[in-house]
Amino acid sequence: MTNVAIVGYGYWGPNLLRNYLEVPGVSVAWVCDRRPEALEKVRRRYPAQAVSGSYDEVLADPAVDAVVIATPISTHFDLAAAALRAGKHVFVEKPMTSSTADAEELVRLAGETGLTLMVGHTFVFSPPVRKLGELIHDGSLGDIHFITSSRVNLGLHQKDVSVVWDLATHDLSILYYWLGESASSVYVTGRGCIVPEIPDVAFVNLRFPSGVVANVDIAWLSPVKLRRTVVVGSRRMALYDDTESVEKVKIFDHGVDYKEPESFGEFHLSYRTGDIVAPRLDTVEPLFAEASHFIECVTTGRRPITDGRAGLQVVASLEAAERSLRDHGGVQTIAATHGPGV
Amino acid sequence: MTNVAIVGYGYWGPNLLRNYLEVPGVSVAWVCDRRPEALEKVRRRYPAQAVSGSYDEVLADPAVDAVVIATPISTHFDLAAAALRAGKHVFVEKPMTSSTADAEELVRLAGETGLTLMVGHTFVFSPPVRKLGELIHDGSLGDIHFITSSRVNLGLHQKDVSVVWDLATHDLSILYYWLGESASSVYVTGRGCIVPEIPDVAFVNLRFPSGVVANVDIAWLSPVKLRRTVVVGSRRMALYDDTESVEKVKIFDHGVDYKEPESFGEFHLSYRTGDIVAPRLDTVEPLFAEASHFIECVTTGRRPITDGRAGLQVVASLEAAERSLRDHGGVQTIAATHGPGV
Amino acid sequence: MTNVAIVGYGYWGPNLLRNYLEVPGVSVAWVCDRRPEALEKVRRRYPAQAVSGSYDEVLADPAVDAVVIATPISTHFDLAAAALRAGKHVFVEKPMTSSTADAEELVRLAGETGLTLMVGHTFVFSPPVRKLGELIHDGSLGDIHFITSSRVNLGLHQKDVSVVWDLATHDLSILYYWLGESASSVYVTGRGCIVPEIPDVAFVNLRFPSGVVANVDIAWLSPVKLRRTVVVGSRRMALYDDTESVEKVKIFDHGVDYKEPESFGEFHLSYRTGDIVAPRLDTVEPLFAEASHFIECVTTGRRPITDGRAGLQVVASLEAAERSLRDHGGVQTIAATHGPGV
Amino acid sequence: MTNVAIVGYGYWGPNLLRNYLEVPGVSVAWVCDRRPEALEKVRRRYPAQAVSGSYDEVLADPAVDAVVIATPISTHFDLAAAALRAGKHVFVEKPMTSSTADAEELVRLAGETGLTLMVGHTFVFSPPVRKLGELIHDGSLGDIHFITSSRVNLGLHQKDVSVVWDLATHDLSILYYWLGESASSVYVTGRGCIVPEIPDVAFVNLRFPSGVVANVDIAWLSPVKLRRTVVVGSRRMALYDDTESVEKVKIFDHGVDYKEPESFGEFHLSYRTGDIVAPRLDTVEPLFAEASHFIECVTTGRRPITDGRAGLQVVASLEAAERSLRDHGGVQTIAATHGPGV
Repeated sequence: MTNVAIVGYGYWGPNLLRNYLEVPGVSVAWVCDRRPEALEKVRRRYPAQAVSGSYDEVLADPAVDAVVIATPISTHFDLAAAALRAGKHVFVEKPMTSSTADAEELVRLAGETGLTLMVGHTFVFSPPVRKLGELIHDGSLGDIHFITSSRVNLGLHQKDVSVVWDLATHDLSILYYWLGESASSVYVTGRGCIVPEIPDVAFVNLRFPSGVVANVDIAWLSPVKLRRTVVVGSRRMALYDDTESVEKVKIFDHGVDYKEPESFGEFHLSYRTGDIVAPRLDTVEPLFAEASHFIECVTTGRRPITDGRAGLQVVASLEAAERSLRDHGGVQTIAATHGPGV
Repeated sequence: MTNVAIVGYGYWGPNLLRNYLEVPGVSVAWVCDRRPEALEKVRRRYPAQAVSGSYDEVLADPAVDAVVIATPISTHFDLAAAALRAGKHVFVEKPMTSSTADAEELVRLAGETGLTLMVGHTFVFSPPVRKLGELIHDGSLGDIHFITSSRVNLGLHQKDVSVVWDLATHDLSILYYWLGESASSVYVTGRGCIVPEIPDVAFVNLRFPSGVVANVDIAWLSPVKLRRTVVVGSRRMALYDDTESVEKVKIFDHGVDYKEPESFGEFHLSYRTGDIVAPRLDTVEPLFAEASHFIECVTTGRRPITDGRAGLQVVASLEAAERSLRDHGGVQTIAATHGPGV
Repeated sequence: MTNVAIVGYGYWGPNLLRNYLEVPGVSVAWVCDRRPEALEKVRRRYPAQAVSGSYDEVLADPAVDAVVIATPISTHFDLAAAALRAGKHVFVEKPMTSSTADAEELVRLAGETGLTLMVGHTFVFSPPVRKLGELIHDGSLGDIHFITSSRVNLGLHQKDVSVVWDLATHDLSILYYWLGESASSVYVTGRGCIVPEIPDVAFVNLRFPSGVVANVDIAWLSPVKLRRTVVVGSRRMALYDDTESVEKVKIFDHGVDYKEPESFGEFHLSYRTGDIVAPRLDTVEPLFAEASHFIECVTTGRRPITDGRAGLQVVASLEAAERSLRDHGGVQTIAATHGPGV
Repeated sequence: MTNVAIVGYGYWGPNLLRNYLEVPGVSVAWVCDRRPEALEKVRRRYPAQAVSGSYDEVLADPAVDAVVIATPISTHFDLAAAALRAGKHVFVEKPMTSSTADAEELVRLAGETGLTLMVGHTFVFSPPVRKLGELIHDGSLGDIHFITSSRVNLGLHQKDVSVVWDLATHDLSILYYWLGESASSVYVTGRGCIVPEIPDVAFVNLRFPSGVVANVDIAWLSPVKLRRTVVVGSRRMALYDDTESVEKVKIFDHGVDYKEPESFGEFHLSYRTGDIVAPRLDTVEPLFAEASHFIECVTTGRRPITDGRAGLQVVASLEAAERSLRDHGGVQTIAATHGPGV
């Protein structure tokens, strides 16, 4: 039996609690929140659940194997670092930290202690993203040429972070999982349309070491909801539309075949159009898959798919993107992700 | 009666000829092409049509009022300049020239001679683009915040130009017509996926003097055909989807209202969702509207909507975009459009 | 304060309980179910809720003003009749009864006792159906010409009733609400594809006294989910697609104008295409609106929109449809709805 | 070389002429029309084409092997019968004749003379209908359970025939080709909404000898254009949407598996959801495929897919449907198609 403590019972905590309660082999030892009214909510729904207003109390409990942190981003580092130092495995919500330096320190701590550090990049555990991951990793799509993604709608403005920290997190984690590499540089155009200091639209241009280029449009101000990603590979192309209720992933057996020119300046292309397949997807809930994966990693020592390094790569990319976005910062190199121990 | 000569009878010329033959008050004096086989095609379809293999002969004909040029881009400048010098009004296909310097010279020549110079930015004459233009210009959408556009499909590769010159031309001419201003800077990420020297995917990031930002995705390598433009304004938002057969334009009475903060750091937003309207569109053929507009400008001296200056702005933007795309050129200022006489 | 008892806590009862708990001025006096395990479920979620396994006990409670019945169809009549005889107002799930004779008896009882009798035709309280109802009733659509509707998907087979009783109930209640009349005759083609004795696909053809004709396709065996209704009127047309997340209702200002012929056999039609409008819809939950309406009717004596007569019309139509479907019964008159007292 | 004469050069004749001119091994000996202005149109487009105002002249020409008839329906029988009697093979547009008796006589004449008689059910030659035909005929869909089809839009009213003769022709010919059988009975509900004597909406209910049931909605009065057919089989289901530009056919590997009950009244169903495939379709123009097929049959003596018998089955079905539609004629048996010699 793995004993976990859910830390933070605000907007997201209830979803985590509900799922961890269902994972076989897990006992939720504590739900922890500083706000009495949050704990009162837990009590009303789950009268038998132990709760605490003190994080220290939770960390001091030797029965606790792991903490699951769903507090505001600015608190992630302190809470996660304290847990690792107390010998607890850590699952922390996305983005992992609010700075690259903090993210590197968490990765270092996890390496030092040998404990599991996992980040809640939930989309990586959703059936359409997993299915596309399989098809990319087994070569079905061939070499990836480029990726475009739109994640926009008339959405709630955040008061403290730009649309980049709010929405690009999702696409970065998905792209890095698919490609098995993180971007080497980023350029962002954007604007604060409603509140000038808080960018609410951004166009994120990414370059990857392998040559892949990607464009991610994100906005809180769009008339229509778009969750559409196009992946173009040398063998096949894919469309992932998360607003579709059924055909979320489509694989196109389309493409262009290239013949090496025999003489200078000559080349021949042939276009190919084949079947379009919408593969059957699993129906597992992403949060449940994510929670199960964390528990499996804690139990077996396996490295999480969305480990601390993945969390660090996303945070470093967000930080670079934000530098580019603010004050027209031009192209920004994303360097921090190649440090030692990472 | 206005006498025009159609110059160039390749891929596009037949469409121009067919439309000019239908514009009231127009006589097609000549169809001109250097290739005998092209003239033979004219003769077979229109036995009574006068044709010529000599551009000099056409320019020397005092009855010719205007030339309509649909030849390869590299020849646009020489043909158009010669026509202006010969006292003929000029309609030239898009892009107007292959360099900013040439475009500036054509604009100068047109100013000097007082002749009409118009560029074939056909989309500007299409009913959905016109309808959206009306709604932007009469303030229905409010201040424009940003625009995103996708123009992609599994399309024919050009052997001599990048996807930017081939496809971005359309979006640039549309955006400049809508906004009444041209971009001040551009950043492009892209790649030659099939033929490394010929970029076939590009993400074009634009900034405008008014503060508007825009992102245009163009590609010859996409599994699905997209012709989708989103315009977000302070009062309303619009979606223009040219792949729709009926509801090509939708106006969303959605938005965010902002209340000035009373104290530092406080602000309140309210979200508004209203009706969605797909306005009825005219059914006129864009090419016919374009031809009619050219003839009207020639006859009345009115300045064309897509005049030489508009052509110059697009060419200067394409040139800057290409500089940014090649060798990771970073953000490029688009300066040439503010020279004297423009 | 109106005291209600929820009777039947199976598949649907929990939804009713949740909504009645939120309606202002309502107290749920009892949740009643014969099955101890059902009552145990109530206790776990709502520890303070009074429950009972005896319907007699509930009816004997003088504090109970109204019963809300969500039990199997075959029990509706006995439970509802007993409640009316005990002086309780009655809300009963759809279809109201399993026979026309029973439905007539309930209507008679409600008339005799002066108590409220309402049927749970929930779709009538959904925002898109209400909006279309407004537009039909205020004449915006003109005279209604015809209606087609599809309600199909790969759905669960019922073991005891045909697809007609399961799905046509929805369309009949919607159509009768919109049109303010019930069908005079019905013809049904159908088939039991999987289990021969249980029709799982049916095409329901309806004629109305006003001349309106309607076609309703229902099936448990369809590759795609369709919830699409087209209403064609003399002034405007409407499309109601319940699978759309945003534009569930669209109004088309399209139509055909007819000029009376001046001489025999001559007539002229002109076609008109105008704007298409997707009106903003309320976001109220249909079940909450339905529950609130029942309580309002109980309190004020107002006649419910979906009163016993509406329930009777639907049951009589289902019965006639079933007669037509079984053994190729041909066109069936729907007569029972015009009896005295209805 | 096969010499054909195109008879009738009105709305459809030019399409036939254009295609027959391109079929290898065909020479268009004559274009025949009684109206001089029609022949004048031929001359202007094809100066070298022989034309005639006299059908007798055409039939008297011993060089003519076959006639292609595209005149008003009421003339089909006389023209086709005369051609067969003159020893010419016959292609005649759909519907083959305006009465079942005439259709039977044509089939008899073709049988007697041994000449080819083919009907222009063009949809049978379109790539999506052919692809679905293959999948039905090779058993990929299993036993067919039912078919629903909608063919509606805001379309031109015919002055002399109901919407049944105008539009149901298409669906009947498609269904009969797919199923390899024609309907045994038909019931139609409909109405003349604009001109009471001319039904402009109809719901056509069909029963087939094999047990298949089908529902075809047709209307000239619909706000949206629908060309959507659902085919449900025991192994797979299919959706054919002719308004889609790319994914016109989709095959769903969905279904319900049935286990025979072990004891009375018990049965178990399991639902299966698999991949969805949009197969690549040929890009051949249906009219060209149809013309090529006719010439092949004339040359080789092969029986056309859409032979006289297929034409007769459709005409007999239309006649029965019209009887059902007019004066509420109830279910009509379609008998004439089983006569001797057919």
